This record gives sequence, structure tokens and C-alpha cells, in this order.
Amino acid sequence: MKFDILTLFPQIIESYCDESIMKRAKDNGVFTLNTVNPRDFTLDKHKKVDDTPYGGGAGMVLAPQPYIDAYESIKKEENSITIMLSPQGEPLSEKTVCELADYDQIIMLCGHYEGFDERIREIIKPKEISIGDFVLTGGELPALCLIDAVSRKIEGTLGKIESANEDSFSNGLLEYPQYTKPREYRGLNVPDVLLNGNHKQIQKFRLEQQINRTKIRRPDLYKKYLDTLQDK
Amino acid sequence: MKFDILTLFPQIIESYCDESIMKRAKDNGVFTLNTVNPRDFTLDKHKKVDDTPYGGGAGMVLAPQPYIDAYESIKKEENSITIMLSPQGEPLSEKTVCELADYDQIIMLCGHYEGFDERIREIIKPKEISIGDFVLTGGELPALCLIDAVSRKIEGTLGKIESANEDSFSNGLLEYPQYTKPREYRGLNVPDVLLNGNHKQIQKFRLEQQINRTKIRRPDLYKKYLDTLQDK
Repeated sequence: MKFDILTLFPQIIESYCDESIMKRAKDNGVFTLNTVNPRDFTLDKHKKVDDTPYGGGAGMVLAPQPYIDAYESIKKEENSITIMLSPQGEPLSEKTVCELADYDQIIMLCGHYEGFDERIREIIKPKEISIGDFVLTGGELPALCLIDAVSRKIEGTLGKIESANEDSFSNGLLEYPQYTKPREYRGLNVPDVLLNGNHKQIQKFRLEQQINRTKIRRPDLYKKYLDTLQDK
Repeated sequence: MKFDILTLFPQIIESYCDESIMKRAKDNGVFTLNTVNPRDFTLDKHKKVDDTPYGGGAGMVLAPQPYIDAYESIKKEENSITIMLSPQGEPLSEKTVCELADYDQIIMLCGHYEGFDERIREIIKPKEISIGDFVLTGGELPALCLIDAVSRKIEGTLGKIESANEDSFSNGLLEYPQYTKPREYRGLNVPDVLLNGNHKQIQKFRLEQQINRTKIRRPDLYKKYLDTLQDK
């Protein structure tokens, strides 16, 4: 997987990918990372990449020229997708993450300040993705979420590939409670069923826990889960 | 605002907060940042913080002792809240961000690997927050999203505080399209209405654009917007 990231703050992207599991994945060749800074492409003599909005309002808007030129400098692979991180995008889901993991190249556009000049959208026509209904100072954290979530679907990132298949959302439900040593901690015990080695009972217990937890915490997901069961 | 972050990867948290707008906010005294590493609290002689799950399964589970001891080492302020970042939590919204900005201290627990031993939840009783229905390798990116989103609601982070009040979601709608110089770029023009200086017309145009965009892209948000209008 090739990640090409357009950002005014390449250091944010690079330092996250030099830590922990992402570093290992990069070192293992799961992905390559290339950052492109629109500031290096601006034709403005003061190196500006933004300006005041037409029609008034607070904040600065990212100008089209530096972003378009930076974008066009990137070599496109055949199996490539371009994503704009924006609160106006489609909410990211685990399903989308899986679909994205099948591309060979993901180009991401990170905004900052008040956002992109609309013509950047019109010219590049990116798929717009939002990580949630909240606002951040820039698109770098959403881009890192995508890099992280997509990478962990590719073999070589997690210790065992199975880890990625047992998480929250993999069967449409939240994860079951997990327990590790010690058996008792401050008077709280690991449920007996997890200690008896009966795998059928353990599976049953865990699925019940998943269902209960999803029903209480996320009735919206639970409804979808029931609809999927009915379809089968 | 005091942010206390429990994490096995403090470098991830610290390097993001040393860049760009977050650095300026920290330098301006908008928030203080303190990271606590559970690995410094483990009583295990090999400094382990995780172990295999009871009942079987792939991956490792974070053990209670290092996390609980690390958590209890943090000095609690009076107006404090503890948050666990987890896909099982309540989905983060701009409303929650605003509520969190009113606390004096936010303590965050970042997981990793297969997640927390359930007894960590039972003992600490944190508010659980999810940034979306997708899975990441750890809670560090969600914690950074919270730090970023909450900070920008506090005066001293953004250039002008007004910037935070005109974004997506501030009136329940997605943001209107933005334009900056030049008036024409590759044959695409800034809409005339934004150039005529008639603020009433500009407001009307922007609201229409917000409504249209939300209707098409996020029918779920549009429905909520209509419900809120009817209530008024």
C-alpha cells in the first residue's frame, strides 16, 4: 500500500508512523509513506497557501493553486483512490476501511483552518470521508486514523492476522469483555465460564455479552444487527 | 484545562501537541499536558503490561494492575472527568466536545492490543467515548482527537474565537462552500453573490448551501435539523 498525504504539517504524519505498530508495519513493507506539502508548491511570493474567504467570515480558506499543483505532482498508480478528510464527508466505517485496504494507493488531502476552496473539490473530485461529527483543527488526525485502520487490515501489521477479525464491528456487534491474569484482582473475579476450557460455552458466553452490550450501548448498531440476521 | 493521558506510547501524544496549532495553544496556556505510562507502574519483573486472554483468542489484553496503579497516581482536580477511548463507547459529537470543554481536567485512558481487562472499567468507571465505528491499533489517535477538538473550543487556541462557531455542526448542518482568491481558477468562478457585498444575500446563499449539502450527504443530520426547527 502506498500512502501519499498532502499536508501542511508533514511532521505530524511522519512522527505517528515512526512509533509503535505503525513503525513496525512500515518497516515490514506493509505500506510506504510519502508526504507532500502544498506550501512547497505555492506561487505566492510570501509562500502563502491560504487567504480570506469571499463573502466574509472568520478564518482563512486554503487556496486552490498550491493544493492542485501539489496533488498533480503525485504519481498515480492504477489502483488508486483520492480521499479528502472533511467533516462534510461520508462517516468512516469498518466496511469502508476494508474496501480501502484493497487499493494499491491512497492519496489523502488534509485541510486546515476554515477548509478548502470549493474548487479544489470540483477539480480533484475526491471521495470525502469524515471520522465523526466533530471538528478538528486539521485533517491530519483523520488521515492518521485512516492509515492506522487500513494498515491493520493488511497482513504484516498485527502480530497475528486473526486479531483484526475478532474486534468490535467485525460481526456488527461491539466486542465482548476481555480478561487476563490475575484471576482475582481487588476482589473482582474472572467469570468462571472463561476458565473451564469448554469452547462452546465460551463462545456462547461471549456472543451473549456482545449482544447485551450492543443492545444497551448502541441500539442503532443492534437494530442493524437484527436486520442482517433476518436477511439471512 | 489539564489533560492527563494514560498511554503506553507517550511520544505519540507529546509529538502531536508540539506541532502547529496545538503547540501554540499549549504555549498560550490553554492546556497543560501530562502523560503517564502504565509500564512505569507494572509490578511484573519483565515490565509486562499485558497477557493472554482467559478463554482463548488472539492478541493480548491489558492487565488491571499497571493501569489502575498508574491511574491512581494522578492528582484529581475537583472538576474532573475520566474518559476511556474505546470502540465500545458513546460516539463523539460536537455537543459532547462542548460539554467536555467545561471541565478543568480530562483524564484519558488509551488502550492498545486487544483492549482493557474488563475490571479496569469496573474499578475506574470511566465515561467511554468512541470516535467512530472503526478499529485502530490504539486509543492514542482518539485521545488526540479529543485534545484537539476540546482545545479549539477554548479561547486562545484559534486566531479568532469566532472561527469555532461557524464550523460544520455548529447549527446542526454541514458547512457551506468556501471560496478565496483568485476569482477565477482554471475556468471556475467564485459565485457572484459572494462578491456583491450584500450580507443578507450572502447569509441566505450560505444557509441554502448548508441545507442542500446536508440533505444530500447526511440525510440523518438533516432529519435531526428539521426536528429541531419544529421544536422551536
